Amino acid sequence: MALTTLPLISLFAAQTALTLREKLCATLRQLINSGKVQKGDRLPSSRLLACDLSISRVTVEAAYSQLESEGYLYRLTGRGTYVAIVLPAGRAEKKAPGDAKISLSARGRSIIATGGCTDPLFPQAFAAGSPDLRAFPHSLWRRITAQTLRQNGESLMRYGCPQGLPALREAVANYLALSRGVRCDPGQVIIVTSSQQALQMLAVLLCDPGDSVGMEDPGYPGARNAFISTGADMRSLPLDNDGAVLPENTRMKLAYLTPSHQYPTGITMSLHRRLQWLAWAREHNCWLIEDDYDSEFYYDAPPVPSLQGLDNDGRVLYLGTFSKVMFPSLRLAYLVVPSSLVDPLCRLRSLMDGHSAQLMQAITAEFIHNGHLQAHLRLMRRLYASRRNLLLDEIQHKLGDKLQIMSRGNGLQLAVTLTGGEEEKLSQQARADGLLLPRLSPLYASASPPQGWLLGFSALTRAEIIHAVDKLARLRY
Amino acid sequence: MALTTLPLISLFAAQTALTLREKLCATLRQLINSGKVQKGDRLPSSRLLACDLSISRVTVEAAYSQLESEGYLYRLTGRGTYVAIVLPAGRAEKKAPGDAKISLSARGRSIIATGGCTDPLFPQAFAAGSPDLRAFPHSLWRRITAQTLRQNGESLMRYGCPQGLPALREAVANYLALSRGVRCDPGQVIIVTSSQQALQMLAVLLCDPGDSVGMEDPGYPGARNAFISTGADMRSLPLDNDGAVLPENTRMKLAYLTPSHQYPTGITMSLHRRLQWLAWAREHNCWLIEDDYDSEFYYDAPPVPSLQGLDNDGRVLYLGTFSKVMFPSLRLAYLVVPSSLVDPLCRLRSLMDGHSAQLMQAITAEFIHNGHLQAHLRLMRRLYASRRNLLLDEIQHKLGDKLQIMSRGNGLQLAVTLTGGEEEKLSQQARADGLLLPRLSPLYASASPPQGWLLGFSALTRAEIIHAVDKLARLRY
Repeated sequence: MALTTLPLISLFAAQTALTLREKLCATLRQLINSGKVQKGDRLPSSRLLACDLSISRVTVEAAYSQLESEGYLYRLTGRGTYVAIVLPAGRAEKKAPGDAKISLSARGRSIIATGGCTDPLFPQAFAAGSPDLRAFPHSLWRRITAQTLRQNGESLMRYGCPQGLPALREAVANYLALSRGVRCDPGQVIIVTSSQQALQMLAVLLCDPGDSVGMEDPGYPGARNAFISTGADMRSLPLDNDGAVLPENTRMKLAYLTPSHQYPTGITMSLHRRLQWLAWAREHNCWLIEDDYDSEFYYDAPPVPSLQGLDNDGRVLYLGTFSKVMFPSLRLAYLVVPSSLVDPLCRLRSLMDGHSAQLMQAITAEFIHNGHLQAHLRLMRRLYASRRNLLLDEIQHKLGDKLQIMSRGNGLQLAVTLTGGEEEKLSQQARADGLLLPRLSPLYASASPPQGWLLGFSALTRAEIIHAVDKLARLRY
Repeated sequence: MALTTLPLISLFAAQTALTLREKLCATLRQLINSGKVQKGDRLPSSRLLACDLSISRVTVEAAYSQLESEGYLYRLTGRGTYVAIVLPAGRAEKKAPGDAKISLSARGRSIIATGGCTDPLFPQAFAAGSPDLRAFPHSLWRRITAQTLRQNGESLMRYGCPQGLPALREAVANYLALSRGVRCDPGQVIIVTSSQQALQMLAVLLCDPGDSVGMEDPGYPGARNAFISTGADMRSLPLDNDGAVLPENTRMKLAYLTPSHQYPTGITMSLHRRLQWLAWAREHNCWLIEDDYDSEFYYDAPPVPSLQGLDNDGRVLYLGTFSKVMFPSLRLAYLVVPSSLVDPLCRLRSLMDGHSAQLMQAITAEFIHNGHLQAHLRLMRRLYASRRNLLLDEIQHKLGDKLQIMSRGNGLQLAVTLTGGEEEKLSQQARADGLLLPRLSPLYASASPPQGWLLGFSALTRAEIIHAVDKLARLRY
């Protein structure tokens, strides 16, 4: 069959490509992809098509050649240009492809069954775990950004090192030595994108399927899910007033601990218990992950120095994040590990996603180096302390019989238990009233967990806190 | 034993903490950590210590209370302050912890055995695979950065969505429809940090240990390593002039393909072969990964539209990166997948590292939306074309008998084979002369691979290319 120029003219007019040749190529591909033509159908001559489309014949010749090289057309000298191929039926332009039968890996199925790891919504009361971004020194940050881009833009745009920018690793090592008693040199610091990435990397590198991993109960779901995703066998570590209790008569590959400020209860692990854990880890050849996620936010007394600083045997894998002290979308966190783990972790990182963005690392290093981080933290501690105190007072005053404070708490959130239970029902009621109440019971592995909430206060103004507690008090307990 | 104030005075002077109380706390912890004191030793009275350190007695009292709450000291009313704890021997201040016996997981050991994935060094000749960052529109980028920070700084600093910023997903969907014939809506686009992350995610989500994965031979090592890390059984797909050859009588879970511009040979997969692959994938329930890593850099004719655009059955998982069209440390790439895979991939992403930095996504969306990406690519295509032509001429002229061009090539590098072999020896010689020659043979899975190099040209000026080819010609072939 010989095709006319007619269907081509309207298709051509609808193309959005940049050059006439590309427009014509797209038109012809679309015609053939539509399935409305047959293999062997003859296309209009280049002269005729050029005339009807009001474009140059050279352009049509170029497009025909291009499509010939792509395999859509074939050309016979002196006899014309023909459709070379029939595309499978059912083809429709601009329609998204259908979905093939999904077959995920076993690991993939177990990963998605965990439901992933949701981040706090802001600035909604009482979503937990974010700093107040309204109080961030935005103009200072803009100035450092502009200056860093001007001075080092090009070199910071290149591929970077999987371990992280040396300037930031040095700043982190100094900062941790000073503020957390961490003993390390910059060569032991690995910059990652988030605590979650650090946990995932440690789980992959250290845990075989079936390995036992100790996990505080209640504990941080992001960590639990990272270990579950490698097929680890989770063991609950109950808590007492000294922190996570040591396991009896059991071997573990590693234990996940939050000694500074247990998540979510706020319990601080005692020095005595820390030394017991270190001795136990040495005896049982066990790694200890110390997740120091928000130790910077203390309000009553400075935090106990890190577990890592007490460890002489290289058992502690220390991790911290800039998501809380700076801002979450910075995507920077850090691991401090024994030297022998540095190279394996860097190789793993290079396979997982290469490295972290260099520009953000350079700006952050500058921010720390010039003392801005310490200054910002001093201000935030004062701000968040007043918000925590207000929240405590408001709860005492308006909900004293309904809620019990778990611990006066440091950090960015306050754990409370419900004296009358009904966590799920009340959380749903609150949601309907625009109040987000992160539930406590899902953080427990045990069968009959306490009921309550984890109330984020750091990102809320005083007025917002008062307003939210009023809503909280209006629930039908 | 009663301690004197003497050892405390020198330790106190060496502390760098910010407040006097923190300095004294650090001094006392250091003393106890040093192991030089005994449990039950009595500390100087607060009056005496305050006097000798020239600080207020209130400060000493506060530090003693703090250390008591941490478990280092105990106080008996009217009788003094005592050391409460003996730390294990062998403890030394400021020394990094030793290394515990390393026991990696089986997967960890196989991952680090791959050697990780090294990124190109720049701007050294002939490191392959980076754009020319000297030609990037730096001042324009700075302007958009400043503007985005000013307008949306706070909201872009929050936690983001694992799937990516909607504005960028929309920009990517439009860009790919126009330039690559990809058929998708923004809901099928997932923003990731790098192609490597996309490959790692697909490998984890889709491949069980022992599953067969088809891989072009030669092929991209980053992809091979990602699949090997999940325990996949790699099957080589040999190449002919139409691209990767279909496997016979074998089942595969997925196949990794680079149809636009095969890595590293530069072969373009023919339309006919594309349709064969799509039919084969449908018949064998196999996923096809289309890695369109540098199709934007074509010099002779626009590239054949994507395999994804021909697929009606949702078999193709399309991926591309901004590392080459913008800059590597941007850390942004994208996946286009059938709708049914979007939620599983987002959950996996949230467990792996949360999400990509929002600020960079917003700036990139703005850059694309305002036409800067297309304009930049037009300039870069012209620039790189002239560099490729120069490299071809120089090689022809100075090394015509020693090197054979594999394909005139698009993209950022040129594959050449050595007529006389000796790839390893010559590469070492070149290295000693400051010339980096990425070797070709390690990219092959087959036993007796061709020998040659992958010469990156895009990031080198004309003078640098001439100088580097001169060095190349001086090797003792």
